[in-house]
Amino acid sequence: MSLTTESATVGFIGIGVMGKSMARHLMDGGYKVHVYTRTAEKAAELVSQGALWEDSVSSLAAKCNVVFTIVGFPPDVEEVYLGEGGLLKNMQSGGYVVDMTTSRPDLAARIFDEAQKAGISALDAPVSGGDVGAREARLSIMVGGEKEVFDKVLPLFELMGKNIVYQGKAGAGQHTKMCNQIAIAAGMMGVCESLAYAKKAGLDPVTVLKSIESGAAGSWSLSNLAPRIIKDDFAPGFFVKHFIKDMTIAIESADAMSLEVPGLKLARQLYEKVAAEGGSESGTQALFKLYT
Amino acid sequence: MSLTTESATVGFIGIGVMGKSMARHLMDGGYKVHVYTRTAEKAAELVSQGALWEDSVSSLAAKCNVVFTIVGFPPDVEEVYLGEGGLLKNMQSGGYVVDMTTSRPDLAARIFDEAQKAGISALDAPVSGGDVGAREARLSIMVGGEKEVFDKVLPLFELMGKNIVYQGKAGAGQHTKMCNQIAIAAGMMGVCESLAYAKKAGLDPVTVLKSIESGAAGSWSLSNLAPRIIKDDFAPGFFVKHFIKDMTIAIESADAMSLEVPGLKLARQLYEKVAAEGGSESGTQALFKLYT
Repeated sequence: MSLTTESATVGFIGIGVMGKSMARHLMDGGYKVHVYTRTAEKAAELVSQGALWEDSVSSLAAKCNVVFTIVGFPPDVEEVYLGEGGLLKNMQSGGYVVDMTTSRPDLAARIFDEAQKAGISALDAPVSGGDVGAREARLSIMVGGEKEVFDKVLPLFELMGKNIVYQGKAGAGQHTKMCNQIAIAAGMMGVCESLAYAKKAGLDPVTVLKSIESGAAGSWSLSNLAPRIIKDDFAPGFFVKHFIKDMTIAIESADAMSLEVPGLKLARQLYEKVAAEGGSESGTQALFKLYT
Repeated sequence: MSLTTESATVGFIGIGVMGKSMARHLMDGGYKVHVYTRTAEKAAELVSQGALWEDSVSSLAAKCNVVFTIVGFPPDVEEVYLGEGGLLKNMQSGGYVVDMTTSRPDLAARIFDEAQKAGISALDAPVSGGDVGAREARLSIMVGGEKEVFDKVLPLFELMGKNIVYQGKAGAGQHTKMCNQIAIAAGMMGVCESLAYAKKAGLDPVTVLKSIESGAAGSWSLSNLAPRIIKDDFAPGFFVKHFIKDMTIAIESADAMSLEVPGLKLARQLYEKVAAEGGSESGTQALFKLYT
């Protein structure tokens, strides 16, 4: 049986630009939602709308039987789940934990194992779709863990996303997200080099897009980020610093599997240069600046 | 005034998999079409349908006032246009020549200049869309040269393509095609590395595509070539050997403009490895094999 508004007391940890919208959709779906985030004022708006503030992960854990997390980096995930004051040490057995942070697949597998020992069901469920996807409840959610657990949590995922796919055992959600980021990474070099070439050759980039974006060179990045580049708009969207985090996880994970990923490695190297030149807080389209 | 079936006697040089369909669309549009191609039997079908066979470029040139070419490599273009028996030395002044080969932008500019001296109007008009696009008259045609000449030839382009865009002065069509190939090149590394990662991680690649192809990782290559890779289908599509030719032109052209294109250079290096391992005649999706 699925979780319902009667059977679930929901916790949400990590009220950033993504988490805020996602938690609100759960509230709008009729769930009682307890919230915790490191910087309390980020949760103020949600609390004014009826979310219940908790002072710590452990107090939230004690009150909730379904907890979603979307925090920053893998060490944050590790602390929230496996720390002394973390979820697994402080939740009742029989509960559910769902990490929606983009994080390490091997950490997701480790959390799954530790959760199981505590009688808790864990899913890894990173998302794509960005702040707009979160706001409009149109996220793509890629889920790893046990299929029965996925089925139980599905009604809650459906409040947050549209394209919700069970990908396999623990870690499979994170691995799928890595596939997503890997496809984007090298693709961004293609988009930026193509536009830089157009400018250098004296072409009008807008007219070039008319010729190329609907054919074999077409991509989400070309249609959505190239127009921003042309307008000198380097605002995030998706932060360079977060993309570097994701690429680093993907590279470490590929290395661990003895998979060569030269395109991904080159892309990370270029993005690290973007960051070194002050672009960490820019959108990923800022890669273009390296070429000019 | 545009060229009409009365005012134009059309020549078509290069009856390969692309040229055959393109010439036939011109014939279907009511134009009388003279054809020449190096291997005569490739033109037999068109001739049986009413095309007029010519034994050489020069005899075709003497009879036609609008000549389209789509041949193999830049040296072929050079010979067909600038050789002793070539178009510019053998056509009447007042004629039109249109090179639809993917070729060097600087060669296109040189042909334009030489044509002008002979009183001939030249366009560079490479295409994308492949054999299917050619067959269905849905090619994207990227055109460089004089705008008035483009306008005159447009009715003939419209018989062959759908997305026909004037990109600027001589060479601009070729430069635009380079932008197209550059965007594809690095993108193909992304697609292949993403799929290779999925397989290594034990994911089902078809299920991974469900999660990622409609979002920010989405691309024509991911939607059209990844499914072929998954089915072990490495047939062309677009030949590795031709893609290497195009990337080489793009790199030389970028070098000449002092533009760094590390993603493109890495992609060519990998594709040269694919060719060295016997994959020249495969489709571009054969890049995947390097990763496994």
